[in-house]
Amino acid sequence: MPLARPPEPPYWAVVFTSLRTPADDAGYAQTADDMEVLAAQQPGYLGIESARDPAGLNITVSYWTSEEAIGWRRNADHLAAQRAGRQTWYRAYELRVARVERAYGFVNEG
Amino acid sequence: MPLARPPEPPYWAVVFTSLRTPADDAGYAQTADDMEVLAAQQPGYLGIESARDPAGLNITVSYWTSEEAIGWRRNADHLAAQRAGRQTWYRAYELRVARVERAYGFVNEG
Repeated sequence: MPLARPPEPPYWAVVFTSLRTPADDAGYAQTADDMEVLAAQQPGYLGIESARDPAGLNITVSYWTSEEAIGWRRNADHLAAQRAGRQTWYRAYELRVARVERAYGFVNEG
Repeated sequence: MPLARPPEPPYWAVVFTSLRTPADDAGYAQTADDMEVLAAQQPGYLGIESARDPAGLNITVSYWTSEEAIGWRRNADHLAAQRAGRQTWYRAYELRVARVERAYGFVNEG
């Protein structure tokens, strides 16, 4: 997965941090991948970055043009995935909606 | 690492996403750990979450009371770590400063 390349700020970020259960890892990975594909089809989508740490903490950050664009959480497939997440895959999670005010990038050209 | 537990929004988040080189993994992990300890000593610090994906994408999100509190980036040890990061450890990174407007949590009590 490359880094996301949204345009210059301001834009919006959804920071989803979660602690996984050991349950059904294959099902989890498939659903997480499906949700990334689904997010990319939504209006206002600017990109996504996801890191799954073997120690069990996952962080996914998705980027959006506006606060309104984040409303894709009400998509039916997404709602089903959220339900399965709470029942099976997550010990805990936190979802934060934030407005990106400044951004700095670095690329090693060496 | 547990999830961070900042108070209710608004507060600030620094989202640092990076692509690693294969170089000097032990030195990188030690410095990353040192920087998390250093961040926690700064005024206005509210917590940190970090996921290191074996595929090479890392995401660290730190939380702060105010935009001004994020100024710890000018700490001398942190500046040295940033320099080493650009020279050795990172193929690319993006640092985003964002204001958290809303947050939702879930804890599995089952």
